[in-house]
Amino acid sequence: MHSGLETWHRIVKSGDLTGLGQILAEQVVFHSPVVHSPQIGKDITYKYLSAALQVLNTQDFKYLGQCTEGRMSVLEFETKLDGIVVNGVDIIGWSADGSQIESFKVMVRPLKAVNAVHQAMAQELEKAR
Amino acid sequence: MHSGLETWHRIVKSGDLTGLGQILAEQVVFHSPVVHSPQIGKDITYKYLSAALQVLNTQDFKYLGQCTEGRMSVLEFETKLDGIVVNGVDIIGWSADGSQIESFKVMVRPLKAVNAVHQAMAQELEKAR
Repeated sequence: MHSGLETWHRIVKSGDLTGLGQILAEQVVFHSPVVHSPQIGKDITYKYLSAALQVLNTQDFKYLGQCTEGRMSVLEFETKLDGIVVNGVDIIGWSADGSQIESFKVMVRPLKAVNAVHQAMAQELEKAR
Repeated sequence: MHSGLETWHRIVKSGDLTGLGQILAEQVVFHSPVVHSPQIGKDITYKYLSAALQVLNTQDFKYLGQCTEGRMSVLEFETKLDGIVVNGVDIIGWSADGSQIESFKVMVRPLKAVNAVHQAMAQELEKAR
């Protein structure tokens, strides 16, 4: 398993963000489920990922499955947000040696969940300002 | 590569649905990007997938990457719908021997694309009635 993926699972499982900075490449690109424009760089990606973990990584959160091939991993998850089931994927692009995240993309379904995530993320990012 | 995946790529590339029926399991489950409730069975899944191919598999359609691990494949695609960039994944659950699709789930981003796909699929399914 890519060493970055092991660290990512440890972070999600524990809720402890220690090590998240180390597995993000300087020029990592974050793609939100809501907005088209990518967010570029370690600082903004860290901000989005920590907000996403705050919003989604509750007691209802679980990974349903994952696949990795070459430098691409996809982790499918399910969680709940205000009673709405959120089903989504983390699509991770790895550095050549698998130690760092070069791109992190999130997609969610159904439509109701996209809207719920949109609203909750906006609130969380506003709090963090 | 799973034999069902080869057939799926042939169908998408050619736009010719021949063989689609053969790679769908009788009890295949389709999960739409828009609606929470799964659609169960070969007939309804065939209907949704052929409508989706009609709507999304235009000259702008391309697969960006894929990964397969065990019985799970994820195929990431990009296309355009009325000028809106649609980025999505097909998440395919395979039968034990990799010849048939047991579940097919689609997620798309960003929010604008979810709405565009929603509208276009509703129109396409209405036409097919």
